[in-house]
Amino acid sequence: MKSTLLSRRDVDFLLYEWLQVDALTKRQRYAEHSRETFDAVLDLCEQLATRYFAPHNKKSDANEPTFDGEKVTVIGEVKEALDAFAEADLIGMAMDEQFGGTQLPAAVAQAGFAYFSAANVSTTGYLMLTMANANLLAKFGTPEQIEAFVKPMLAGRFTGTMALSEAQAGSSLADITTRAEPQDDGTYRLFGSKMWISGAEHELTDNIVNLVLAKIPGGPQGTKGISLLIVPKYLVNDDGSVGERNDVALAGLNHKMGQRGITNTVLNFGEGKFTPGGRAGAVGYLVGEPHRGIAYMFTMMNEARMGVGMGAVSLGYTGYLKSLQYARERPQGRLVTAKDPATPQIPIIEHPDVKRMLLAQKAYVEGGLALGLYCAKLVDLQHSAESENEHDAATLLLDILTPVAKSWPSQWCLEANNLAIQVFGGYGYTREYDVEQHYRDNRLNPIHEGTHGIQSLDLLGRKVTQRGGASLAALAEAISSTVDTATATGGETATLATQLDASWRRLASVTTAMFDSGDVEAAMANSVVYLEAFGHIVLAWIWLEQILAADGHAGDFYDGKRQAARYFFRYELPRTAPQLDLLESLDRTALEMRDGWF
Amino acid sequence: MKSTLLSRRDVDFLLYEWLQVDALTKRQRYAEHSRETFDAVLDLCEQLATRYFAPHNKKSDANEPTFDGEKVTVIGEVKEALDAFAEADLIGMAMDEQFGGTQLPAAVAQAGFAYFSAANVSTTGYLMLTMANANLLAKFGTPEQIEAFVKPMLAGRFTGTMALSEAQAGSSLADITTRAEPQDDGTYRLFGSKMWISGAEHELTDNIVNLVLAKIPGGPQGTKGISLLIVPKYLVNDDGSVGERNDVALAGLNHKMGQRGITNTVLNFGEGKFTPGGRAGAVGYLVGEPHRGIAYMFTMMNEARMGVGMGAVSLGYTGYLKSLQYARERPQGRLVTAKDPATPQIPIIEHPDVKRMLLAQKAYVEGGLALGLYCAKLVDLQHSAESENEHDAATLLLDILTPVAKSWPSQWCLEANNLAIQVFGGYGYTREYDVEQHYRDNRLNPIHEGTHGIQSLDLLGRKVTQRGGASLAALAEAISSTVDTATATGGETATLATQLDASWRRLASVTTAMFDSGDVEAAMANSVVYLEAFGHIVLAWIWLEQILAADGHAGDFYDGKRQAARYFFRYELPRTAPQLDLLESLDRTALEMRDGWF
Repeated sequence: MKSTLLSRRDVDFLLYEWLQVDALTKRQRYAEHSRETFDAVLDLCEQLATRYFAPHNKKSDANEPTFDGEKVTVIGEVKEALDAFAEADLIGMAMDEQFGGTQLPAAVAQAGFAYFSAANVSTTGYLMLTMANANLLAKFGTPEQIEAFVKPMLAGRFTGTMALSEAQAGSSLADITTRAEPQDDGTYRLFGSKMWISGAEHELTDNIVNLVLAKIPGGPQGTKGISLLIVPKYLVNDDGSVGERNDVALAGLNHKMGQRGITNTVLNFGEGKFTPGGRAGAVGYLVGEPHRGIAYMFTMMNEARMGVGMGAVSLGYTGYLKSLQYARERPQGRLVTAKDPATPQIPIIEHPDVKRMLLAQKAYVEGGLALGLYCAKLVDLQHSAESENEHDAATLLLDILTPVAKSWPSQWCLEANNLAIQVFGGYGYTREYDVEQHYRDNRLNPIHEGTHGIQSLDLLGRKVTQRGGASLAALAEAISSTVDTATATGGETATLATQLDASWRRLASVTTAMFDSGDVEAAMANSVVYLEAFGHIVLAWIWLEQILAADGHAGDFYDGKRQAARYFFRYELPRTAPQLDLLESLDRTALEMRDGWF
Repeated sequence: MKSTLLSRRDVDFLLYEWLQVDALTKRQRYAEHSRETFDAVLDLCEQLATRYFAPHNKKSDANEPTFDGEKVTVIGEVKEALDAFAEADLIGMAMDEQFGGTQLPAAVAQAGFAYFSAANVSTTGYLMLTMANANLLAKFGTPEQIEAFVKPMLAGRFTGTMALSEAQAGSSLADITTRAEPQDDGTYRLFGSKMWISGAEHELTDNIVNLVLAKIPGGPQGTKGISLLIVPKYLVNDDGSVGERNDVALAGLNHKMGQRGITNTVLNFGEGKFTPGGRAGAVGYLVGEPHRGIAYMFTMMNEARMGVGMGAVSLGYTGYLKSLQYARERPQGRLVTAKDPATPQIPIIEHPDVKRMLLAQKAYVEGGLALGLYCAKLVDLQHSAESENEHDAATLLLDILTPVAKSWPSQWCLEANNLAIQVFGGYGYTREYDVEQHYRDNRLNPIHEGTHGIQSLDLLGRKVTQRGGASLAALAEAISSTVDTATATGGETATLATQLDASWRRLASVTTAMFDSGDVEAAMANSVVYLEAFGHIVLAWIWLEQILAADGHAGDFYDGKRQAARYFFRYELPRTAPQLDLLESLDRTALEMRDGWF
């Protein structure tokens, strides 16, 4: 039976036929690898995801973690899955060999990881946070911190979290109040409370490594005065063993619409439940320099944002494959042109509207996966760049694509899940089937790691203009190069290229008009509309790239790619025209709405 | 504290300032009523909904009905709520006085009922089904059937269901296999199984009146051979008391994403669990004539479809009001033009993107409510028509608006709930707040009582062309009349009228082109796109109607209406342009997609 997690055929197409990820092995960083090791990792990921992660997905949704005031209980299958992942040495799959990692290209690692997210996004969440945490500490931590915290995380003995938000601050990190008081021995003592911290309390591993944003008294106001500290659940002894309990205490669990299998916590630091070393406060260790926490965290956050995008893709993808399978097997009704009730019912995949819903899902999830892997390859080009210029070129593109790679799948692969429910009809609405859970799980993605609105401010207020518009110019150049190739290809591909070129030029001229207006308030008021139009145009480019990679190849798989691209250009890209008109008009409808008028 | 169920100010505006429902009291049917009795009913509905329905909404979501193999247990608050509703004589609020009803206009009854749906759509579901069932039997049942079943339903002693779907048939009613075998005494014995039957098993009332579609052996194939039968859970004795158990047995409960408080069942008829009168089969009583069941059911179904639309509106509306309240109370962040972290945080309602999300919700839910009440008033004009022509005029409009009144709120008031979650951010994703449940509850609406796709086939394949296009012409005339008035009003209203007129004309010409093409297959393949474009244009008309009603009135409420209308014309109506282009091109992308290409 075919896997309903991801299509391996599509993964292979994207990695090898399109992105030519195997060519990365010519670079020093990836020289130990080969297409064979990549394939072996992908095989392993699919097998482990299928065997250890998928089977308890519904169970952990129905049996979310419970807190008895002392301990948190999580169903046993979660630990088995995490252990299997760690034992397969996958936690460090993309990390440097010097830290015990496998140094795989991010593109391969992300594709492999997507199988786990598709199988069970909650259990996978513990891993995603641990991997991001370990990556950050490997980059900015001291050798001692790496020894004490990173290595046990890679071995699966510890898990990690990222603790940014506070109840009163949410998206506004400038307003956090958790404080870190310096001690004579160079450590810190933390006091405060954090909200929405996933994976921050459980008994799945020996220890939990919290990376916490806090303010060191006397520092600058706002985000410039925020530091990053390691605040483990248990202190770690010099020999690496787990020691005294730190004063990190669970105030309570949040109960979510989806992603119910991973704990989401309110966490109190230094409230006095424990007194490590006989003194008040949670012990913390500064990462890097004081007041630079936001910069460090954003390294992790960018990775986390791309991870969120890939998580959204994975859920969209598995929902698509499940609804596809259902549509093939479920007989119901007849074609409008053949209504005779004496004839047998047809599988619903033959109904044009069902095909439309499947095709839309295909366009969203394969497009989203392609975008995610494209961005992952940019990370690889950064990591293996042989010159400053090469590094910079990848960084410029990655910077402007990150808000899209986070927000676009969070919106459209969620919509794919919505369509998957619709294909299943009443069955899709029941918990006896998977797709309603995928929808609920996926609904988190436009909220966490920077909401949809925050992504739009990042794109329009920062990325588009940064370094004199250099990121935007880099993207323009990449798109233009694709358009040129497609135009030279001729035929239908050239027609699509013309359409993309026109959309991109219109976007560029609208962008210029918005900034030239000098009316920042009006320009920023519709930043979400901008993000959404921008995202759809980027995805049209990604689809054109894919059909170029399919060019000259015959067969169902390639015909499917071409049809999905047609769908995207005919049904989706045209949505951007009225959005761009609205943006160009610097519409003030939302801006001028008054509280009292609601 | 202001109610967060519906805005009474808005209800009053729609009913009295716009629809002038009080003028209905000049008609014979409603002569016993007055604005005062209407207001008293609305007050009562809001009070009962707030007191008996809203408080257990979350509890019944968290504690869904359970089945121990013998009995179904539902939390006690459900019965208290149903009893309170029945004791207030609301079950028959829109029914004829001759059956013990209050004979209120449907517009008033629907507005009142919306408070209950907003408060608790699951508990209200038992009532909605009972009321629709009673209405159908009052219309087509014999005096004995009315005595035995309708009167106890109005008194709250019995509840009702509608049992159409079967596991193998779903939306394709032609393929049901439940059979009704005629008996010598004029009754029938039923054998078969029904799926998705809401409210069909519980101990909340003395009896459950199932209206069941079945085939009488020897009848025509397809939908023309379907009959409608009353199949009660318990037989009713001649004195009206509840007698022997009928062979209607619960096979199991479905477990849904939302609307968890109302039982949803697989129901077996005549499987032999019970043997009424010592013989096999579930006893059924034919309603009306044999083989006319679909026609009877569709009377109930049209009402049910409008009811689904109003339910979707109610959930959208309460989510909007809750997210509005939250946005006013929640401080977070600062304006892009005033980023100094030393200044206090502002309520999030001041952020333009939050205003945009609230304004979109306002446009969707107030627009949806207006459409629902407009349709309800058409029902009143039918019921109180003083000539055949008058009746026909209302019917033509109602026919073509019904698929829109069902599908548009099911799509856009669901989207309103999606935006409400986004306004709440992380909190909105938790079950500690209400909005995620509203989303889950609302997600059923594009599926049941005819899916989104079925509505689109009904609109494009039936309603648009019926009686030589008379329904479409009636709508064109209604819109044209609004456009004329708005044009005469001048100013901004006239500008919006021009925009609506252009959209409508474009829709009309695209419709003509689609039918003139003779390519039925391609025309029907994008019926959902047609439904969605059609719906948005209808809603633009409804918004223009509202600002005409607000014309000349000053003050926050009216300014809010005008701003929401602006939002709709600037952000929403333009979405239809690319949809209409696609339709005009008779796009075959979905149609030509092949199974093997997925």
